Amino acid sequence: MNWEIWGVVAGLITVSGYIPQIIKGYRTKKLEDLSYMLNIFMGFGMIMWLVYGFVITSFSVIFAQVLGVSLNVTLIWMKYYYTNINKNSS
Amino acid sequence: MNWEIWGVVAGLITVSGYIPQIIKGYRTKKLEDLSYMLNIFMGFGMIMWLVYGFVITSFSVIFAQVLGVSLNVTLIWMKYYYTNINKNSS
Repeated sequence: MNWEIWGVVAGLITVSGYIPQIIKGYRTKKLEDLSYMLNIFMGFGMIMWLVYGFVITSFSVIFAQVLGVSLNVTLIWMKYYYTNINKNSS
Repeated sequence: MNWEIWGVVAGLITVSGYIPQIIKGYRTKKLEDLSYMLNIFMGFGMIMWLVYGFVITSFSVIFAQVLGVSLNVTLIWMKYYYTNINKNSS
């Protein structure tokens, strides 16, 4: 059993929770009801996990957190971008 | 630096995302708009992480996943319970 493949699959599953939110935001071009604070807080937690992953040299933990932080930053950036776009067009 | 303390803090942060949802559900006694499928899928992913945590013997990973699965099961149970309560009272 290759446990790193198992861990990568686990990471893909738990991080995939971001996907519907990103798709929804992309479709509606609006992420007003999304909390900046919660997302920054989560991003901070994931960066802590990422550091931990390097310390214990777990490929699965590193993989999941790099993916998670990327999607998290994408979402925060989308909220920022759509907020500015909507402000300027109104 | 005790990295297991670091990891436990990381776990507390990322798992804490469940808390506002549980509080909201408890207050409104209603979790209709919560997706069973997403939550069962997430629970499955966390159980995979838990197994991975045991395999690599990472206390932080085990701690975070035990906590995460507990909150996840609480939430699924709450949805099931409130759905039945509301059905019987109407």
